[in-house]
Amino acid sequence: MPAKMKAAIFVEPGRIVLEDKPIPDVGPLDALIRITTTTICGTDVHILKGEYPVARGLTIGHEPVGIIEKLGSAVTGYQEGQRVVAGAITPSGHSHACLCGCSSQDGAGTRHGFKPMGGWRFGNTIDGTQAEYVLVPDAMVNLSPVPDHLSDEQVLMCPDIMSTGFSGAESASIRIGDTVAVFALGPIGLCAVAGAKLMGATRIIGVDTVPERLAIARKLGADDVVDFRAGDPVEQIMALTEGRGVDAAIEALGTQGTFEAGLRVIRPGGTLSSLGVYSTDLRIPLSAFSAGLGDNRIVTSLCPGGKERMRRLMGVIASGRADLSALVTHRFKLDDIEKAYDLFSHQRDGVLKVAITP
Amino acid sequence: MPAKMKAAIFVEPGRIVLEDKPIPDVGPLDALIRITTTTICGTDVHILKGEYPVARGLTIGHEPVGIIEKLGSAVTGYQEGQRVVAGAITPSGHSHACLCGCSSQDGAGTRHGFKPMGGWRFGNTIDGTQAEYVLVPDAMVNLSPVPDHLSDEQVLMCPDIMSTGFSGAESASIRIGDTVAVFALGPIGLCAVAGAKLMGATRIIGVDTVPERLAIARKLGADDVVDFRAGDPVEQIMALTEGRGVDAAIEALGTQGTFEAGLRVIRPGGTLSSLGVYSTDLRIPLSAFSAGLGDNRIVTSLCPGGKERMRRLMGVIASGRADLSALVTHRFKLDDIEKAYDLFSHQRDGVLKVAITP
Amino acid sequence: MPAKMKAAIFVEPGRIVLEDKPIPDVGPLDALIRITTTTICGTDVHILKGEYPVARGLTIGHEPVGIIEKLGSAVTGYQEGQRVVAGAITPSGHSHACLCGCSSQDGAGTRHGFKPMGGWRFGNTIDGTQAEYVLVPDAMVNLSPVPDHLSDEQVLMCPDIMSTGFSGAESASIRIGDTVAVFALGPIGLCAVAGAKLMGATRIIGVDTVPERLAIARKLGADDVVDFRAGDPVEQIMALTEGRGVDAAIEALGTQGTFEAGLRVIRPGGTLSSLGVYSTDLRIPLSAFSAGLGDNRIVTSLCPGGKERMRRLMGVIASGRADLSALVTHRFKLDDIEKAYDLFSHQRDGVLKVAITP
Amino acid sequence: MPAKMKAAIFVEPGRIVLEDKPIPDVGPLDALIRITTTTICGTDVHILKGEYPVARGLTIGHEPVGIIEKLGSAVTGYQEGQRVVAGAITPSGHSHACLCGCSSQDGAGTRHGFKPMGGWRFGNTIDGTQAEYVLVPDAMVNLSPVPDHLSDEQVLMCPDIMSTGFSGAESASIRIGDTVAVFALGPIGLCAVAGAKLMGATRIIGVDTVPERLAIARKLGADDVVDFRAGDPVEQIMALTEGRGVDAAIEALGTQGTFEAGLRVIRPGGTLSSLGVYSTDLRIPLSAFSAGLGDNRIVTSLCPGGKERMRRLMGVIASGRADLSALVTHRFKLDDIEKAYDLFSHQRDGVLKVAITP
Repeated sequence: MPAKMKAAIFVEPGRIVLEDKPIPDVGPLDALIRITTTTICGTDVHILKGEYPVARGLTIGHEPVGIIEKLGSAVTGYQEGQRVVAGAITPSGHSHACLCGCSSQDGAGTRHGFKPMGGWRFGNTIDGTQAEYVLVPDAMVNLSPVPDHLSDEQVLMCPDIMSTGFSGAESASIRIGDTVAVFALGPIGLCAVAGAKLMGATRIIGVDTVPERLAIARKLGADDVVDFRAGDPVEQIMALTEGRGVDAAIEALGTQGTFEAGLRVIRPGGTLSSLGVYSTDLRIPLSAFSAGLGDNRIVTSLCPGGKERMRRLMGVIASGRADLSALVTHRFKLDDIEKAYDLFSHQRDGVLKVAITP
Repeated sequence: MPAKMKAAIFVEPGRIVLEDKPIPDVGPLDALIRITTTTICGTDVHILKGEYPVARGLTIGHEPVGIIEKLGSAVTGYQEGQRVVAGAITPSGHSHACLCGCSSQDGAGTRHGFKPMGGWRFGNTIDGTQAEYVLVPDAMVNLSPVPDHLSDEQVLMCPDIMSTGFSGAESASIRIGDTVAVFALGPIGLCAVAGAKLMGATRIIGVDTVPERLAIARKLGADDVVDFRAGDPVEQIMALTEGRGVDAAIEALGTQGTFEAGLRVIRPGGTLSSLGVYSTDLRIPLSAFSAGLGDNRIVTSLCPGGKERMRRLMGVIASGRADLSALVTHRFKLDDIEKAYDLFSHQRDGVLKVAITP
Repeated sequence: MPAKMKAAIFVEPGRIVLEDKPIPDVGPLDALIRITTTTICGTDVHILKGEYPVARGLTIGHEPVGIIEKLGSAVTGYQEGQRVVAGAITPSGHSHACLCGCSSQDGAGTRHGFKPMGGWRFGNTIDGTQAEYVLVPDAMVNLSPVPDHLSDEQVLMCPDIMSTGFSGAESASIRIGDTVAVFALGPIGLCAVAGAKLMGATRIIGVDTVPERLAIARKLGADDVVDFRAGDPVEQIMALTEGRGVDAAIEALGTQGTFEAGLRVIRPGGTLSSLGVYSTDLRIPLSAFSAGLGDNRIVTSLCPGGKERMRRLMGVIASGRADLSALVTHRFKLDDIEKAYDLFSHQRDGVLKVAITP
Repeated sequence: MPAKMKAAIFVEPGRIVLEDKPIPDVGPLDALIRITTTTICGTDVHILKGEYPVARGLTIGHEPVGIIEKLGSAVTGYQEGQRVVAGAITPSGHSHACLCGCSSQDGAGTRHGFKPMGGWRFGNTIDGTQAEYVLVPDAMVNLSPVPDHLSDEQVLMCPDIMSTGFSGAESASIRIGDTVAVFALGPIGLCAVAGAKLMGATRIIGVDTVPERLAIARKLGADDVVDFRAGDPVEQIMALTEGRGVDAAIEALGTQGTFEAGLRVIRPGGTLSSLGVYSTDLRIPLSAFSAGLGDNRIVTSLCPGGKERMRRLMGVIASGRADLSALVTHRFKLDDIEKAYDLFSHQRDGVLKVAITP
């Protein structure tokens, strides 16, 4: 093993560059993974633009597929050479949050055990995955072996996109026969469509404006699509449901517009499941909130992580219940990651997700 | 039975007056109840002030205790002369909302079966309970016999105050060992304290500023009280919880201040359970919402109704698990209801709830 | 409308015969339905054989599709001439059981509101559906309009088979990524397979021995099938799951063998969801029960009814999410119902379900 | 620190003796605890009698209160000298079972991550707590600091008795207003009474025959007590509930009699929550099971562990919501533990629990 590796690091707003970095030492609970495939997330673009602050010099990225290069001295149950995936969120397993069923808010380092987004470490508080190697903390909690018959690309959505999108449906407690609207059909919204279908929604309405995305949404389970440029999506959805509204709306963008439209289309007793990362205060119009008397829920979810989550998501892929292969639209070498950022951050060429291979 | 009865009717903003009205005819599914005790709700004051519109001439009030005077031709399982209570919300039992577990949003008259607040009929869409008689629709769904050993006053909180306050705790899914903050300790907030205790919260923090209310809150289960005039309640609660925040906050007033403070004190993964009736748009500050990544829930509840709910709440009273007797602070004859409105709407003399007896 | 109708009535063990009967009067909450399609259930065969006692002269059958002929005087929201379906279980909407979310155990006529199987009335405590007309009680709770584009046969499984089979998956709280075994692949077991798939199970193992049934199970979602004649199904399932066992087992026959095998294949923390109608005491072997320390659940379900349930199930059919058309294998005129019973009760000719049309 | 310690070890059926043993080495994730108080459990008596097999030479006991003597090299967040408690069940935090919300069935050492009772290690698969020192595995998951104002004895029920008893109520999903019967009022049954009250049950019926136990049950929340020597407890409970039955029965003994009586008293739709450790096959009488059509649940629970559970249970004690001090009836020095076993295993002198102090 060499002493140095290439890594995409954050320098300053507007600049993520590929540089050499030392390959990290492996602590007793860690595993060093040689990345074979990773990807760029919308959150990474927020980081690039300086909208989400991280430390200068931090390696970016939180979606790893790779090979175990070296295991920590206290790690059992794995072998070096195994192909594994880890979630974007890497809970410790021992925080109060973890033991409370809320591991994405892991607060292992805090006195009381809960911390907003505390489970998100890769490319946020520790070096991330857009590199030749990544150190996975709490390896026994987070490493999940990849079945031989699944390719890297097939499982590349598991760490974040699929886990987050599916959690939008799960947090909404979708039941058999529900009608669900999904606002914004980027990769996460598309996975929310697939998740809602997988949980038994029988009427799924996808909202976007890009024809390719609407088409993929149909393949993944959308029964109707609404182009918000063709008219107010709230009115279109109320018309499609004959005035009833939807049992659940899933918001997958993070804007006042999608948040508010979601609130307006849910029926009395319905749920707004919010996945987007917001960058401004939100407004709840009184009329969209039944003055607080509508028996409604607004629920937010951060990507669930941990090896059991990864195992289950890979099970979905292996079973053929959801085919997410259309989500990887472009492929780059790690050496060309700056080009990949350029394409992805400008949403050119119909890009949904890019696969990055060292 | 006489042909006429006295009833407190809405005339115009600022005027609720006692007038004679015909005693209504009894349809096949109805029951005519001779009111023995009723009360005035904060919502009635909104109506009085013109803040919540109802039809001119409507009888106000939605909290009935009384005697069955006459049963509809299709009603079975009850006897005339029985003492009964009915919830403020009177679901039909046959709407899609009812069959979906969301009976407060009963939409029996709508095509699709959900309607915001559709289950609230007394003193809203049909004549209410501040009268000598009230017609209870869908009597078999709504009438619950009062056990002999409970007085009218003992069960007077069941139809609305206790049902609503408890639902604040129930919708928050309180678990054994939870820490809960309750914002605003009027009658509903006080019942939320009692409900949170009844579900196993072991640290309950009541927030108000009126010493009598804080004292009653302590009796009903508050372990700590926070006087918001003595400093920012968010800071006080964070200090009391050593920075951890609360598992659930219950909002019982309906203002931006209490809503926002509730959001700010819940831990990552925590729930804001909102009971208040809002009269303005609400704002969700980005910092109070973890940018949508805190795994939080905001849930609103309308008072659950129906005879099973009433049976259970009377069971709480009968068991002595919660003693709400301190909530009835004043008593008036129906003839003096205008004086009762004057006292109650101005919150004079430490009033919490008034008992009205024809 | 004629005064008489043909009806399949129970005479004595071994004899269900077609006879003339008066068309019933319509009470205020009833609806008279002209049956256009109905079917025979395994339960009816139990009645035929005298294994489940019903009153002599009772019309058998509990799965109605038909046209509203006449509405009771207090029924609103429907029109005569509408095509409707009603569930096998017809809750009243006003019992404590209904208001408690347990409407199949409706005890409207009892003092306390719960009664085992109290919601099952058709062909059990009141005249059933194998006739030219049937009286539907509590019509507003139970009648669900059939969308025009769905045929009678397409919705014929909704009243019982699909509702029961799906409830097997629902009561097991299937989650995305679960592994599920379904024991016995008659019509209900096949619907349990479809229901488990619809809720996100990614590995479904069907257990039976009839090749046609195993083949249909595969089409409806079974990823693996186990022929119990080819060896102990417990061993086969443990081998398929590499010793892990299943998250949930669904029992759809009602025998000691399937019950016990279900217990033996669930993992620690797993659920046995039982749908079968048992006719003997059951034994729980200590070894299959981890001495009571396995964090296991055994849950039984009776077919959920009511119009909202029917609406949702028809939504499943309409969406194409499950295609149950293979379940109707034979068709008979009502006049030939005795032949249909003969075929069905002897399970000849690969019969799964028969459609009966007056 | 000395090299040797005293420990109560299993020699052979009938013999648990106090012997010298080396103080164990501390691995990276472990903590060595100097026991200040521990106790004997009914399970230990099963071990003593040879009814539950453990390895010869194993230190018995699974209920530790003590002082951190030494922390493993990878353990952070604690200090040596801190007073702590750990649960009887010590999950790893990193098994699939843990990550699935089922940590008592921790299967960290298995391929697939679930193992019956796998989380129970103390005095079962590793050395236990009836000793001067105990090694706590996965210390960061399991050690919970004891608040200064709580005595050892006050928290002594947390590791097992209280956690198990409360889980009986939690697994039954007790709701406000429920009626609950608890069968057998030993320490765990008494805690089940307290737990049911804490979750909002308003009618709790305790079943036993020892007057002292019935009296303590009343103090902890039982509204009625049934002496099973005074007549069939099923009949007595049905009479007390006017034929309705109970919403939930909690079984806390582990015999056919209590299991069957529990089944017979639950209402349609009700739950039997089983806590007992069974030693024989069980029988489910057809008549007690509504032939599988009663919408009933049978649920078993193993004592939940982990530091968050301990924190919450100590919160219950600290809040005064439940006063379990009456449960410790006798006190012994570790040197006299053989006498303590003699007293406890013969249930002499009204013993409920004994406190053992080295």
